[in-house]
Amino acid sequence: MSASRTVYLNGEFVPLDQARVPVMDRGFLFADGIYEVSAVLDGKLVDNAAHLARLDRSLGEIGIANPHDAAAWERLQADLVARNGLVEGLVYMQVTRGVMERDFGFPPAGTPTTVVMFTQAKKIVANPLAESGARVITVEDLRWKRRDIKSVALLAQVLAKQQAVEAGVAEAWMVEDGAVTEGSSSTAFIVTRDRTLITRPLSTALLPGITRASVLRLAGEADLRVEERLFTVAEALEAQEAFYTSASSFVMPVVEIDGTRLGDGVPGPLSRRLRALYLEVARGA
Amino acid sequence: MSASRTVYLNGEFVPLDQARVPVMDRGFLFADGIYEVSAVLDGKLVDNAAHLARLDRSLGEIGIANPHDAAAWERLQADLVARNGLVEGLVYMQVTRGVMERDFGFPPAGTPTTVVMFTQAKKIVANPLAESGARVITVEDLRWKRRDIKSVALLAQVLAKQQAVEAGVAEAWMVEDGAVTEGSSSTAFIVTRDRTLITRPLSTALLPGITRASVLRLAGEADLRVEERLFTVAEALEAQEAFYTSASSFVMPVVEIDGTRLGDGVPGPLSRRLRALYLEVARGA
Repeated sequence: MSASRTVYLNGEFVPLDQARVPVMDRGFLFADGIYEVSAVLDGKLVDNAAHLARLDRSLGEIGIANPHDAAAWERLQADLVARNGLVEGLVYMQVTRGVMERDFGFPPAGTPTTVVMFTQAKKIVANPLAESGARVITVEDLRWKRRDIKSVALLAQVLAKQQAVEAGVAEAWMVEDGAVTEGSSSTAFIVTRDRTLITRPLSTALLPGITRASVLRLAGEADLRVEERLFTVAEALEAQEAFYTSASSFVMPVVEIDGTRLGDGVPGPLSRRLRALYLEVARGA
Repeated sequence: MSASRTVYLNGEFVPLDQARVPVMDRGFLFADGIYEVSAVLDGKLVDNAAHLARLDRSLGEIGIANPHDAAAWERLQADLVARNGLVEGLVYMQVTRGVMERDFGFPPAGTPTTVVMFTQAKKIVANPLAESGARVITVEDLRWKRRDIKSVALLAQVLAKQQAVEAGVAEAWMVEDGAVTEGSSSTAFIVTRDRTLITRPLSTALLPGITRASVLRLAGEADLRVEERLFTVAEALEAQEAFYTSASSFVMPVVEIDGTRLGDGVPGPLSRRLRALYLEVARGA
């Protein structure tokens, strides 16, 4: 970690190595908090209004008052990006229910939330993985039932991603009752041989992906029909193409699932087209 | 919070208000950690070997190396209890996967874990709630699938407990497919009219309660048959008695479920007998 990075913590900008929270923080004791990640491209935030809206919604769903309105968040984000000279990467935001003597119930009304933001530099556009294509494995989906809430209770996703790491692949697609639910930190898509783009519909059972929504809007430009439904692992293995989306990977072509090569084993033309279209939108933001 | 309390943090005993962890701690960012709670009675730890064994098992299940053997944990716990002059209450222990730049996959092998321990004073024996009996409500069980792992990914339990708080009752019993799975921070039991003690069998779907195990061992002394199976909300409402167990509530008689009074609306004789038997065992430990 670069100790020189500047982190935002509860109203102050501090060096990373001084950014600490009390052990009684409910984020640390209970995973009682929400997070968001916005990509930064050419020094500018991508799809940020949608990320801030989702942050607000997630906070509301677990009864945490959003400490800032969207304009205030944006000012803080822009300030943090500038202080860190970030050109390409991401801004991470986390809000917890604050600090209180350990007790499962909520702290008294008015207890200040804990707010943390930091940046990470990352090659998003010239990501070598997007050129080679990502390999994925499927793993059991162990998560809780409110997957629409972007909480920091991420242990199931951590364990899923670690299985991918140990298998030497880029991502784990989580599976429940034979269907692919989501990636450990991404939304899963397949493209069938008749140019249909398939991803599961929004519900409390998945995160409403911001990049997912943008890609669905762009599908028409890539001459793709959209079908929002669950797809099985078997369908994925038979797909013409596959990819996953996230704030920091944009559209990531998948070339192998559980050791089975998709198509020619290189990023497919439709995935590449969607990636290019999304990049244009992101740059134009 | 008493600022004078002494907290154990990574090898040091520090005042509570100085006990802080880096924002990059995986406990704070990912709920990537395990916890345990041991009761303290007359200055001595209760059922502690079993709690330390469960801590070791939980850590192993998510691939965190236990930083201490049981003897070392006990020395640290005893030291902390003594430094805080704790006579009755609990010792809380938490181990996280440590501090690393945010990334879902595990940190490199050898990354030091974060270890936190603190005490809380609490009236366990002369708990007024045990005299009046606890009222509970039932709520939907939103948790993940590995409920046998005592992880700090507790958001579902926090939301369940808060529903109880808002309903003005002591505990929330979580329900899945019509059956009572567990309390938000306890194990649920009912006693039928034919003196059968019912609680669900161990599996990955519930926490292997330490007090639960002790109570099941004591059931014979209270002239109760034991049946380990799921029970429904309807069965609970028809029960002769009900109670829940946890490290810090011991055996807590339940007198009302979802507004329906059980029996006479006061703690039943069998629940009281089990509480007394467990207290004897705890004191003799």
